[in-house]
Amino acid sequence: MKTVVVGTVAFDAIETPFGKTDRVVGGSATYISLAASYFSKDIGIVSVVGDDFPQEMIAIFHLRGIDTAGMEVKAGQKSFFWSGKYHMDMNSRDTLVTDLNVLADFNPVLPANYRNAEFLMLGNIDPNLQIQVIEQMNKRPKLIVMDTMNFWMDIARKPLDRAISMVDVLTINDEEARQLSGEYSVVKAARAILKRGPKYLIIKKGEHGALIFHGDHVFFAPALPLEEVFDPTGAGDTFAGGFLGHLARSGDTSFSSMKRGIIFGSGMASFCVEKFGPERLFDLTQAQIDDRVHAFIDLVQVDIELVG
Amino acid sequence: MKTVVVGTVAFDAIETPFGKTDRVVGGSATYISLAASYFSKDIGIVSVVGDDFPQEMIAIFHLRGIDTAGMEVKAGQKSFFWSGKYHMDMNSRDTLVTDLNVLADFNPVLPANYRNAEFLMLGNIDPNLQIQVIEQMNKRPKLIVMDTMNFWMDIARKPLDRAISMVDVLTINDEEARQLSGEYSVVKAARAILKRGPKYLIIKKGEHGALIFHGDHVFFAPALPLEEVFDPTGAGDTFAGGFLGHLARSGDTSFSSMKRGIIFGSGMASFCVEKFGPERLFDLTQAQIDDRVHAFIDLVQVDIELVG
Repeated sequence: MKTVVVGTVAFDAIETPFGKTDRVVGGSATYISLAASYFSKDIGIVSVVGDDFPQEMIAIFHLRGIDTAGMEVKAGQKSFFWSGKYHMDMNSRDTLVTDLNVLADFNPVLPANYRNAEFLMLGNIDPNLQIQVIEQMNKRPKLIVMDTMNFWMDIARKPLDRAISMVDVLTINDEEARQLSGEYSVVKAARAILKRGPKYLIIKKGEHGALIFHGDHVFFAPALPLEEVFDPTGAGDTFAGGFLGHLARSGDTSFSSMKRGIIFGSGMASFCVEKFGPERLFDLTQAQIDDRVHAFIDLVQVDIELVG
Repeated sequence: MKTVVVGTVAFDAIETPFGKTDRVVGGSATYISLAASYFSKDIGIVSVVGDDFPQEMIAIFHLRGIDTAGMEVKAGQKSFFWSGKYHMDMNSRDTLVTDLNVLADFNPVLPANYRNAEFLMLGNIDPNLQIQVIEQMNKRPKLIVMDTMNFWMDIARKPLDRAISMVDVLTINDEEARQLSGEYSVVKAARAILKRGPKYLIIKKGEHGALIFHGDHVFFAPALPLEEVFDPTGAGDTFAGGFLGHLARSGDTSFSSMKRGIIFGSGMASFCVEKFGPERLFDLTQAQIDDRVHAFIDLVQVDIELVG
């Protein structure tokens, strides 16, 4: 397996100002792997679900060329369930229900053919499990990307710091960067975090775009201004999936390549938010993706001559 | 006079998480004209101050090549005073004091040599006064740029709508775009506002950058990620001043030129926030401005090839 994605595969119930759904497939590994599948094949998921998880969704993974041998199905148990409600501004949400179910004793075990993966994406789960996955690899992957959230900063800071020290790219949002570093300025926060292990830090700002920091370099990609943002759930994971998929396809992990990855990731995220759940990521065409990436380039393209 | 800037010239008292000042020169016309002066000369201010206004500041205007013949000095009266306190996130603030003083009966009268200006910038004041200024022009300027705020949407909607119908470029923030249009989506809000007169709409998003809409086109410029944002007061006006100054210098009011103007405006705003009040705008060098604009270009520059 070239690329391994570890994370949740779950059910979500979502309410936004524009609609409501009682049950839709969700989970970080779902969004990441689907988005990545448009760029690179040979992707395997490491996760756990209950036997309530729909065969149809597993079939969609397979159609998208995503291997599910690492996705344990626990008989007689229920899949992880999350329920949340978005505020009018869509940038903040309240968690209404978190039923861990199968996730409560998730013990990721990588199939033998996953252990030589070149690209490893650690979705947002317990940092102890993220470490456990890294330690199962036969050799250090070419690139490890890790996502996390404030919850783990609050309750598992020590294993979180250790996990962060083991990865190449960390993705968090601006509030989390502040919490993790104790620095208010995003620039200072990035500098502090880059001293703890990762060579690259991606700061996700939702509708305000994303920044990638590397040494003294910084690159910014806006989010595409959209007519309708229907459901932001999974946008951050979809962004990470597009980023990862681009790097896996190109095999190029330079900063220049990562900048391109940020644009592809932003493009994929702009599709994700158009419908509830990951549905929009089931059957995109290459032409649709190219159009979206063109729109991003147009959005920031300017020819400028300096005065001096 | 080639360019006329109408707005306030005032005193501010500002408290931010990083410091406090009891009295510093402020006002929209101050920031706009200083920023514009780095790009174009032949700029005149239309405003009103009391005889408490410092001669030193008037001397700085003159040093920067800004004409103050249109700035009435009212003997025995006090200048407009505003006091505000910023929240930790620096994106929101509370107004503590607003003493209108001379502004209470401001009756802008343009000197004869201002009435043929090609570029007219209407800073954020009562829309009735903005209309009054437009009506004093001998001929319709080549470009009228107008700033306003939610306050006027609340208490003077009718004259505001009329003023908006008379200008080429409107600058507001995202919340104000929502309030003005009744549309939540910024894209839909922009489309609705562009039907009311202006051919260009600039939406200022503070630390999240700025968007310019024109027909079906949109362009985005990020704010530069800064180590320290010391005081955001005047950043929006400084942005508008850089934008206006570039257009006045080039004489080119096409959308491409406006995109460049947005970058120059963003660059000037990134200086403004580094110190209290407009101080940072007193003596910038061309090399400093060029460096800042280069940093903006680096921030978004990416070479990308599509897959398809």
